[in-house]
Amino acid sequence: VAEGAVSKVAIVLDFGGTQLRAAVIDRDGQILHREAVATKNQAGPAVVVGQMADISTRMIALCDVREIAGVGLCSPGPLDIGQGLIVHAPTIRDFTNVPVVRMLEEHLGRKVLLEGDAIAAACGEWKFGAGRGVDNIVYMTVSTGLGGGVISDGRVLYGARGLAGHIGHMKIFADGERCGCGNPGCWEAYASATNFTKRARVALGEDISAKEVFAGAKTGDVRAQELVDQQADYLGIGMVSCLHLFNPERIIIGGGMSNALDQLMPGIMKRINADAMPAFRDVEILRAGLGDNSGLLGTAQLVFSRIA
Amino acid sequence: VAEGAVSKVAIVLDFGGTQLRAAVIDRDGQILHREAVATKNQAGPAVVVGQMADISTRMIALCDVREIAGVGLCSPGPLDIGQGLIVHAPTIRDFTNVPVVRMLEEHLGRKVLLEGDAIAAACGEWKFGAGRGVDNIVYMTVSTGLGGGVISDGRVLYGARGLAGHIGHMKIFADGERCGCGNPGCWEAYASATNFTKRARVALGEDISAKEVFAGAKTGDVRAQELVDQQADYLGIGMVSCLHLFNPERIIIGGGMSNALDQLMPGIMKRINADAMPAFRDVEILRAGLGDNSGLLGTAQLVFSRIA
Repeated sequence: VAEGAVSKVAIVLDFGGTQLRAAVIDRDGQILHREAVATKNQAGPAVVVGQMADISTRMIALCDVREIAGVGLCSPGPLDIGQGLIVHAPTIRDFTNVPVVRMLEEHLGRKVLLEGDAIAAACGEWKFGAGRGVDNIVYMTVSTGLGGGVISDGRVLYGARGLAGHIGHMKIFADGERCGCGNPGCWEAYASATNFTKRARVALGEDISAKEVFAGAKTGDVRAQELVDQQADYLGIGMVSCLHLFNPERIIIGGGMSNALDQLMPGIMKRINADAMPAFRDVEILRAGLGDNSGLLGTAQLVFSRIA
Repeated sequence: VAEGAVSKVAIVLDFGGTQLRAAVIDRDGQILHREAVATKNQAGPAVVVGQMADISTRMIALCDVREIAGVGLCSPGPLDIGQGLIVHAPTIRDFTNVPVVRMLEEHLGRKVLLEGDAIAAACGEWKFGAGRGVDNIVYMTVSTGLGGGVISDGRVLYGARGLAGHIGHMKIFADGERCGCGNPGCWEAYASATNFTKRARVALGEDISAKEVFAGAKTGDVRAQELVDQQADYLGIGMVSCLHLFNPERIIIGGGMSNALDQLMPGIMKRINADAMPAFRDVEILRAGLGDNSGLLGTAQLVFSRIA
């Protein structure tokens, strides 16, 4: 193949508290190389950013004759995109106000794009996964927390500081349960996997896992089924609001909780059919299609659309 | 002035249950003519659409040498923008599934644009009112109901069927008060002027008006002040969610309730400072600047950006 015929690639990192993933991805969403290392989450920011630089350098070396469109990083937050800062990464030791963009750019001698992990995953699903072909998506990731990213009218929703789409911190019971963010009544404080497990442990005993509750419900355990129904209803409540706020064609659910979507769907649809205005009910609710790769693929998409 | 130097104008109608307003507006937001008639809200759709056609014809005649860019209509809803239908206009008799766009186009021999009144007002404030100069606005109109329109990243938020931004039907107490839309717990069911008055009448007697409650609070009436504080808190609760969802630079409040914004601001800010995550708190809350003309000016803006 002549060099001119080889399409550009993006070098992308998906930074998480447990794993640091990296990949070389082309414009079509083909993952040409992929690697993951355990995040040294107790070693401090210098070591962790060193891991990012090392893995990027390896990926760049693997590109051979391919031209590199840019380097992208998605990260948990809050972030300050304008300043290239990770303001705080909750599950990584001392990771506060880390100027990760400047640090990586100095290391690599290339421009680095920073994006929130939920927005990146939303983009990945939109371009390459369960959101292909529509212009209005609410992506939600339900695991430790409840994160989100919104595609509206064919564009990523950013807002003034790139912080739009924090759907998990929409209030559903205004003065209710205290959320991890410190405030009362957030959707996350009810519908995250963490809070599901918490309720299950109160009801069924300290050792039970979310997985076991779903398994129990499947075999006809009434108390497990009640917990699943309650969880589905909490998910449905916030989805009703998302329908009225964003009028999406699809709601796409990622994160660990999405593995149980089949069992949750009846309860979710019950709440939507009861409480959403008729014109808004015409929505598909789908499980995310890209698994662990949604953040990588979405970050690549953002590199191509913004840098390249 | 040579004819070529005269800018195009838009003919716009703002259709409400009480008044039908019409205007001729130029690209700069200058209102060249303006007229309002009482909506014949008990006379049926044919008569009401006849009023719209008549007032449009008068406005067109007034344009003289000016070239007409297009005709626009904003209306309460729900609407079906794609079909040019007013699905239902709640306060106007028999106004259900009225194909207002086709009816007006046949009458006028011109293309007619239809938009929701809250989106139109949001656009008006954005381009010519309290929202000038920023790209991210949540506009809310608080009167009989609680309507909204969102400008995000410099664009009107539409969603799949043009129904995004129904912020009044975001749930704030998921299984709480029944809303006019039929569903429980909507923001509107707490923070609309109707519900404020309802609470005041329970607390202070059947004859009291919203205006009197605000006047009472001003003169130190403790029970009136409690009602005002409660109302401000309900407004603040939904605003906190709007901050996390849309990350706006400004929240702009129109509708009758906005006349009391000075008295409501302390309670609104108390809730925002207590419950919004720090990065989202940096928002201006402003009273709408265009009064009765926000819908007309916004509809003109939409005519110029979409038809012209």
